[in-house]
Amino acid sequence: MAAHEDLPEPAGENGNDELQGIRQSIDNIDAALIHLLAERFKFTQQVGRLKAAHGLPPADPARELLQIQRLRGLAEDARLDPAFAEKFLNFIIAEVIHHHEQIAGTDSSAGGSAASTPAP
Amino acid sequence: MAAHEDLPEPAGENGNDELQGIRQSIDNIDAALIHLLAERFKFTQQVGRLKAAHGLPPADPARELLQIQRLRGLAEDARLDPAFAEKFLNFIIAEVIHHHEQIAGTDSSAGGSAASTPAP
Repeated sequence: MAAHEDLPEPAGENGNDELQGIRQSIDNIDAALIHLLAERFKFTQQVGRLKAAHGLPPADPARELLQIQRLRGLAEDARLDPAFAEKFLNFIIAEVIHHHEQIAGTDSSAGGSAASTPAP
Repeated sequence: MAAHEDLPEPAGENGNDELQGIRQSIDNIDAALIHLLAERFKFTQQVGRLKAAHGLPPADPARELLQIQRLRGLAEDARLDPAFAEKFLNFIIAEVIHHHEQIAGTDSSAGGSAASTPAP
């Protein structure tokens, strides 16, 4: 009885049980995110091969602008910070462009991991 | 007839139809990613409030190490670059710690967007 007297709230011992439960949900979401990202990169690899076959540039600023606007709108609806959604898309696109450069330039600087050299 | 003679492959006009189809799939995946991220941040906000209530530090290096190992394994199974999966988790965790610092320090530097100041 006296042992409970200074617990800040009824959340188990130091909130640990509640913390573990939430972390399991986070781990489930992370597994889903990883698998969706894997699938997304399969599609962008297809785009990369298509672009290379038709001589299109790796980056596509007009498409990226549309994606940013759309994702910011979706983020607002989902009560996610739109600025974070935009940062997230830029993070993904940087990786995609790096992949596309590797596809387009397999004979020059491929093998390195720098993403700053434009495709030949 | 002659119009087709130098098409590199049978992929519609310049591959545009195929490109549009793939981009629709990418857009669908992005919508799913945004909604999962919104849900993930709802859970990490809960973690943040729990940590603040029990005086726990915003960052948890032991937990983060476990998450990185697990996500690298999941990425390998899904044929996603494990290094990218780790970079992705670090990107998300940086945002989460920033949120936790805001929750723990609402009366000091809250409102700014820097994530480098430890929680008071």
